[in-house]
Amino acid sequence: MIDDLPAGLRARRLADEDHVPVLAVLDTWWGGLKGKSGSTERALLLPRLYFQHFTTTSYVIESGDGELAAFLIGFLSQTEPATAYVHFVGVDPALHGQGVGRALYQAFFALARSYGRRYVHCITSPENSSSRAFHTRLGFTASAVQPDYDGPGLDRVTFSIDLSADSAALAPADRSPDS
Amino acid sequence: MIDDLPAGLRARRLADEDHVPVLAVLDTWWGGLKGKSGSTERALLLPRLYFQHFTTTSYVIESGDGELAAFLIGFLSQTEPATAYVHFVGVDPALHGQGVGRALYQAFFALARSYGRRYVHCITSPENSSSRAFHTRLGFTASAVQPDYDGPGLDRVTFSIDLSADSAALAPADRSPDS
Repeated sequence: MIDDLPAGLRARRLADEDHVPVLAVLDTWWGGLKGKSGSTERALLLPRLYFQHFTTTSYVIESGDGELAAFLIGFLSQTEPATAYVHFVGVDPALHGQGVGRALYQAFFALARSYGRRYVHCITSPENSSSRAFHTRLGFTASAVQPDYDGPGLDRVTFSIDLSADSAALAPADRSPDS
Repeated sequence: MIDDLPAGLRARRLADEDHVPVLAVLDTWWGGLKGKSGSTERALLLPRLYFQHFTTTSYVIESGDGELAAFLIGFLSQTEPATAYVHFVGVDPALHGQGVGRALYQAFFALARSYGRRYVHCITSPENSSSRAFHTRLGFTASAVQPDYDGPGLDRVTFSIDLSADSAALAPADRSPDS
């Protein structure tokens, strides 16, 4: 389902039962950013509906003992037939730098293509500089900071990638002659 | 597009430009519930992505001078091919009791049916007793209060309706011989 994962990790589709464990790790993975209000913010961005109604375009990565290692929650745009959207991605900080985030995105790109989607969009907070750098390395084009993009005080940077362009977005499956 | 609206109101599809006006009226319509943190909560439940990627199953109702009167934001479940979901509904309190909320839901039910969807789900907060009564009148079946349903401290009541059942969910178009 997902290529190029570090040894001992395996991927599966997101499920309803993942909601509690995902919310539980967010505070740890985000380093408790913004305290209790940050915790509530993250929960509100991940209501259970994503774990019920968008599981076919969302992944969980677990370690051998079933511990949550990473996840990606995405969907196909209902409005734009050529667009898919990545809503939320998290990777256990202990696994950073091992290509887990990249593998998740590549899998999502391949899935989006299989649904005839050419563009993938996502957003991040301006202060999340590692996220901004990561998306740029993946081949996304970043916008300038958009003040109040998601509401008063909720500034965002938007990212967009054209999967039909010859870029770093090519999934391993596209590069390997034997897959 | 929507039948049975009070005179002077008209419906159209939700658009990206509606994000700011919708967030702006929420505090007024919700009576400033929970102050600034309530305001942030509501904004986080309505990120811009809904106004970009789920516009084909979402409505805005305006008065003759273009002022926002009501809205419904829904989507088709990607996971469950027989299910549609209503994420957020708001009606100007000045218009309560005039059937605007009912008209929005009936339109969504008809749209859901046109996409082959048989079930519609939605949720509300346990303390929102008028929302609970409204959904029951519409023909929804309510669950018991589900503690921490959407995350720690975010209790919810869930609602479900079977559009194929003979119930109050029938849209005007289903009852009227001339439409």
